[in-house]
Amino acid sequence: MSKDKLQQIFEAAGVDALYIEADFLRRYLTGFYSTDGYVILDGKSCRYVADLRYFEAAEKALAGSPVEVIEGSYKEAMELLKPYKTLGVSYPYIDLERAEDLRGRGYALKDCMPALKDAMVIKTDKELDIIQRACTIAEDGFLATLPEIREGMTESQLAALLEYNMRKFGASGTSFETICAFGAGASVPHHETGETKLKFGDPILIDFGCKVEGYCSDITRTFLFGDDGHHEDFKKAYAEVLKAHELVKEKVVSGMTGKEADEVARGSLRAAGLDKLFTHSLGHGVGLLIHEYPRLSPASGEVLQNGMVFSDEPGVYEAGKFGIRIEDTVCLKDGKIKSFMSKTEHDLLIL
Amino acid sequence: MSKDKLQQIFEAAGVDALYIEADFLRRYLTGFYSTDGYVILDGKSCRYVADLRYFEAAEKALAGSPVEVIEGSYKEAMELLKPYKTLGVSYPYIDLERAEDLRGRGYALKDCMPALKDAMVIKTDKELDIIQRACTIAEDGFLATLPEIREGMTESQLAALLEYNMRKFGASGTSFETICAFGAGASVPHHETGETKLKFGDPILIDFGCKVEGYCSDITRTFLFGDDGHHEDFKKAYAEVLKAHELVKEKVVSGMTGKEADEVARGSLRAAGLDKLFTHSLGHGVGLLIHEYPRLSPASGEVLQNGMVFSDEPGVYEAGKFGIRIEDTVCLKDGKIKSFMSKTEHDLLIL
Repeated sequence: MSKDKLQQIFEAAGVDALYIEADFLRRYLTGFYSTDGYVILDGKSCRYVADLRYFEAAEKALAGSPVEVIEGSYKEAMELLKPYKTLGVSYPYIDLERAEDLRGRGYALKDCMPALKDAMVIKTDKELDIIQRACTIAEDGFLATLPEIREGMTESQLAALLEYNMRKFGASGTSFETICAFGAGASVPHHETGETKLKFGDPILIDFGCKVEGYCSDITRTFLFGDDGHHEDFKKAYAEVLKAHELVKEKVVSGMTGKEADEVARGSLRAAGLDKLFTHSLGHGVGLLIHEYPRLSPASGEVLQNGMVFSDEPGVYEAGKFGIRIEDTVCLKDGKIKSFMSKTEHDLLIL
Repeated sequence: MSKDKLQQIFEAAGVDALYIEADFLRRYLTGFYSTDGYVILDGKSCRYVADLRYFEAAEKALAGSPVEVIEGSYKEAMELLKPYKTLGVSYPYIDLERAEDLRGRGYALKDCMPALKDAMVIKTDKELDIIQRACTIAEDGFLATLPEIREGMTESQLAALLEYNMRKFGASGTSFETICAFGAGASVPHHETGETKLKFGDPILIDFGCKVEGYCSDITRTFLFGDDGHHEDFKKAYAEVLKAHELVKEKVVSGMTGKEADEVARGSLRAAGLDKLFTHSLGHGVGLLIHEYPRLSPASGEVLQNGMVFSDEPGVYEAGKFGIRIEDTVCLKDGKIKSFMSKTEHDLLIL
């Protein structure tokens, strides 16, 4: 991260120093990842305390950056904190055991997550590039999986295969537990992937994503494993969900609130009489976390801005019958929506 | 969990009620898993607050158990806490944001993790059975992977393939990020799996494990991808690591301390002049977490008891040359060590 942006976060936090342990926040501030480490940011410096396992790699990766690398572990980090009185820690991402230890050492704690959140919600071009790669790998993994789908395979097997294909294309792992639902199972938006076997004519819903350099992708595709001729309602609903999904890409612009963006999709489904079956919100921010800001929901007053990344995922769920969700990860660029997903079909796919 | 054991944990915690959010601890207390939920344990009842996504499944899974299922979310959980003054929360597994919210509602907090830890360290027969399954799947996945190892594949590809094979045998996922190291890369005990390509004659070190019903397995195998005739030192060291590993299985008994168990392996390597290259401790507890109690290290005074599960993982690392680690997950049963690993070779394997 640039010195200016580090300074901006420090000033917004209003503390003597930020003390950060959570791995994704250390990665955010410095660009370097390790399972353990401590980042201390004050008005003059940003220091990364890395133990012997990571010290060399950190020095190499952070040469020329505004971040200074110091060899040590918790003890050394505590030495470096001595000049300060008030520490900014991330309340949602620090455990109470550590917080009590810091308070026991005499520090006043203040939540620095609002300052971090404000910075994290606007992605840099470098971050957008990484998210683009995570999205492309997710699509490539999906396309490589399609020809391997067979009658009789289980939801778990299909999920495992897709995850393996994303790994082969360069993902470090999944960005969340893959949701794979066959048939009526898809009518539960957070269906638990299980041992249900695929039958001819089943709709398949897969909600998946992968990580690249810590950043997430998030995508859902719903399609048919053969057409048994009993899918009239499904096809009608699919067309409406797709219409809502595409309308968001067309109509959502910078300056709208999360509520207004959600209403673009919800209004379209309402016109088709399907809004009551759209039981979740339109989207959520995507970045180092799979769920971050902004929120695109009927209750969200957050203003959408250039550089924000979020999901566009309208859905329609008819209990016990079917579930349809079409999701891309998108961003706002030059005031308009740009999708990171361009390789996979959005029209109804019939295998 | 039995009513007696729940009562025992409640009494050991010394609070009005335990309030548990961390998913693995909810699973431990009730046997039911959901991504979100709240468990409240007092002297009279154990209640699982599950929202609409999980309520039905929880009711079904917990019928006939001592756990009562209540539909609701955080708000309903807070209602149920009203009769109490002092809450037991797990300090290492509750975030400061939630802790501050509870304190703001007037509750005094106390760490209940010591009480939970004391219970968790002794596994029930049911838990041992699940861990056995996780270990068998890890071995089956490894055996299915061996014939697919090819010159030129990368560490990441091999790791992905192994993980996929474990999933195919029924694992829900990995118990930690697979460590796969080719050649001299293995001389770093926590090598980061990367893009190094496999060459004829390379030693391969794979440290991996999977999860079944939330419980972990942990296993490391070191072997040769062909013998190029330059492995004399490696083979000598391998024989010594294996000797230390097997000696632990033979000599470690209930009643020993973690330090004494560690010394069984360390003493054996010392006799061979290799103890200075054994740069970590012998083992760690394995359960719902990949690292839990007991610790088997030169500093551990913990007394080993029947029902404990831990790793037996001596290693020898010669910087820039090679690294060897042989690891089984084992338990103490009837006073003696019993390994969960019986399908894979411990003698040096040469592909």
